[in-house]
Amino acid sequence: MIPAPKSKATRPEREVILGIDPGSIFTGWGVVELEGNRLCHGAHGVIATSTALGQAERLKQIYRGIQDVIQKHRPAAMSLEKVFFSRNVQSALKLGQARGVALLAAAESQIAVAEYSATEIKVAVVGYGHATKEQIQKMVTALLCLRSPMRADAADGLAAAICHIHRRTFQKRTGGIVSRHATKGNWRDYVQVAAKR
Amino acid sequence: MIPAPKSKATRPEREVILGIDPGSIFTGWGVVELEGNRLCHGAHGVIATSTALGQAERLKQIYRGIQDVIQKHRPAAMSLEKVFFSRNVQSALKLGQARGVALLAAAESQIAVAEYSATEIKVAVVGYGHATKEQIQKMVTALLCLRSPMRADAADGLAAAICHIHRRTFQKRTGGIVSRHATKGNWRDYVQVAAKR
Repeated sequence: MIPAPKSKATRPEREVILGIDPGSIFTGWGVVELEGNRLCHGAHGVIATSTALGQAERLKQIYRGIQDVIQKHRPAAMSLEKVFFSRNVQSALKLGQARGVALLAAAESQIAVAEYSATEIKVAVVGYGHATKEQIQKMVTALLCLRSPMRADAADGLAAAICHIHRRTFQKRTGGIVSRHATKGNWRDYVQVAAKR
Repeated sequence: MIPAPKSKATRPEREVILGIDPGSIFTGWGVVELEGNRLCHGAHGVIATSTALGQAERLKQIYRGIQDVIQKHRPAAMSLEKVFFSRNVQSALKLGQARGVALLAAAESQIAVAEYSATEIKVAVVGYGHATKEQIQKMVTALLCLRSPMRADAADGLAAAICHIHRRTFQKRTGGIVSRHATKGNWRDYVQVAAKR
């Protein structure tokens, strides 16, 4: 007797998200997979550029490094931290250059890009908007059931990916009502709309 | 009788330089050719990104636009303005992103990159370090024997290319002594070395 094909409903939905923490010297990255309701660690690493090279060659190293990760893990989206502050104009420019090639790698691979503030990422991972780098490393290690903590740059990449997954899951569950109403700060409307659903 | 082949010495040396003025909305570019001692206008233009698109897609437009110019004109070097100041961090970040993909396009095509301060470019083109945008447009139009002035972004691209050619020509004539000694502000040494040549 031919066995009946497995129902599609039994197979948990799987989504791969790439988190990036760009930097002119070290660019951290992390791949997180969502299988059903379970967060799974895909991979993580740091693209270290050679300081002996000129800035154009170093940007090529970052671009090619991210392209390799995209080709290997085929993420559905790229998640990055929004930047509001910087030490000075030179730091902002260098960070911008690294962000530029990371965003380009996403666009060239037709991957959606999502950006979150540092506070949003910290709240999603640690539950506290002023969490330290060490707290992020520890929580990322715990959430993804890893044995040892990773480098801070890679932890920031994984944290950006986790934040995107949390946000998407929350939006799916609330049918996007929160994001539409929360921007206006109109929670009364949200409660009324949610009650009718 | 077979005519003697033309001597290579009679053919003027030709070098093509691409100047870029990166920007998140408009990226100006200009190609200047040096034939012997003569500056020739190659081409110029502005890559305008669509504000309806996300920043990743707009960076792709800039990157592809510069790649097209490189493939068409095969420059030996890319010249850009060094950035020291910016209105704020957000402006510096956006400019950095556009610069990042411009530098990447140069690295991917194995083109050397040269950077000059705004003052160096203004002195090379106008002869005055505090020249206005209009003065740059007029002088670029005059130096390249063009009939009508171009857009300010394209003029800045052409000006960066002219600055690189001036600097290279000057260094060739002085055998690189000026650049080695001028950094130390030791002009007495320079005069002594130059006198021995």
